[in-house]
Amino acid sequence: MERYKVVIIGSGNVATHLAQAIDRHHHVVQIYSRNIAQATSLADKLSDSRPTADLSDIDPEADIYIISVSDDAIPSVAEALTKIKGIIVHTSGSVGLDSLNNIGKHIGVFYPLQTFSKTTEVNISEVPFFLEASDEPTMHTLENFANTLSGKVYYADSDRRQVLHTAAVFASNFFNYLLDISTELLEEKGYSLDVLAPLIKATAIKALNNGAYTSQTGPAVRGDIATILKHLESLDSNKKEIYRLLSQSIIDRHKIHKEI
Amino acid sequence: MERYKVVIIGSGNVATHLAQAIDRHHHVVQIYSRNIAQATSLADKLSDSRPTADLSDIDPEADIYIISVSDDAIPSVAEALTKIKGIIVHTSGSVGLDSLNNIGKHIGVFYPLQTFSKTTEVNISEVPFFLEASDEPTMHTLENFANTLSGKVYYADSDRRQVLHTAAVFASNFFNYLLDISTELLEEKGYSLDVLAPLIKATAIKALNNGAYTSQTGPAVRGDIATILKHLESLDSNKKEIYRLLSQSIIDRHKIHKEI
Repeated sequence: MERYKVVIIGSGNVATHLAQAIDRHHHVVQIYSRNIAQATSLADKLSDSRPTADLSDIDPEADIYIISVSDDAIPSVAEALTKIKGIIVHTSGSVGLDSLNNIGKHIGVFYPLQTFSKTTEVNISEVPFFLEASDEPTMHTLENFANTLSGKVYYADSDRRQVLHTAAVFASNFFNYLLDISTELLEEKGYSLDVLAPLIKATAIKALNNGAYTSQTGPAVRGDIATILKHLESLDSNKKEIYRLLSQSIIDRHKIHKEI
Repeated sequence: MERYKVVIIGSGNVATHLAQAIDRHHHVVQIYSRNIAQATSLADKLSDSRPTADLSDIDPEADIYIISVSDDAIPSVAEALTKIKGIIVHTSGSVGLDSLNNIGKHIGVFYPLQTFSKTTEVNISEVPFFLEASDEPTMHTLENFANTLSGKVYYADSDRRQVLHTAAVFASNFFNYLLDISTELLEEKGYSLDVLAPLIKATAIKALNNGAYTSQTGPAVRGDIATILKHLESLDSNKKEIYRLLSQSIIDRHKIHKEI
């Protein structure tokens, strides 16, 4: 297995989890962050890594440069990397490959489809990575590299990656928001979200095993307007609007031909 | 441990899972269903149970009668049970205890907060049961009985049970619908929902461990309007409406002070 020299640009959640996973198989030579304390804190977690807060100080001899900063900051960081000969990738689900067009010959996208936070362990070997590259040799290197980290490596051009990201917003960000709403409702009555844990788990497993369409249950897919109206009555304006829209959408999706 | 004589009225998903779990510790003397084939099929799965499709044939000597039929059918079934001396309960999240008022002295609600389907195994011992009863001795019996099935037995009056059911609609039915939307988006590009499985799992674990409010990630909570607009552009009218409403709700919930 080839051992790549890698520079990580960024020190947020994605950068931190990636850097630590990469460090197990490769050499993370440098960590860049605008904030030198954060760069140092992350570098200190790795076997042999130099922190910097100066973009002009980026090591020009690495094989792969991973830009893992907020989407807005990608262009300004990329500008500073024009002299780099190695492969330059970003990790964003919603930024095109063309955002790196001007900075190098060998560019790519290295998108891990997972939610990362500082406090939660992530098993990188189960995280799907979606790759895109400017040319065949670059794709070949990125594939080799990704396969050392994860068993799930896929190809996605910028258009497909945006769809993946959009689907992830529904299945993760919006899902989490539904749990936030549930928590508010439960806590008003002295319960915690824990009482729903077995239900949430079973719902995810059923949808993944049998398909979400056929797994749909609840008042909307039963066309049980009486229960829907009772629930709507008990909800405040924002939750009511969400409940109504999602219920009517389920009714329409399953061709129940009813109106709330 | 007392061994109760139980009659199950219904042969749907909830009735089936309950009957099989109860059969391990108690005597399910009878299964009623309007459809004798279904009553027979369920009774055949139990150790010693008689099927019937005739409400006037219900065994009057059991300890507990569990009405597990659709909400609409509860009143008509209940009417036929007026001569029963045992405890009569229903299993609905959204029907009040008072729906059983006229049929007996000892009535209750026995609400399992889980999604049941014929094809998926459910570990009943982890399912939270929410109980309500007309009187103290009835509650005592129902508690004893529920504790033989599950380690998670709670009390909920009809008002609290409706809130539980509403919260469950958000965390399960609507969650499943979001996965349905994600599946549609992914399949258009040749992916399956499986690519989101690690993300969905991590999202649920984070929300349950750290709280959903603090676990919120994504374009909305980042106030990343550019990404939101890109996603909206790519969605059809119904998905667009849902994406917009949920994103704006997250923005407002986290006081980001932006408008989509």
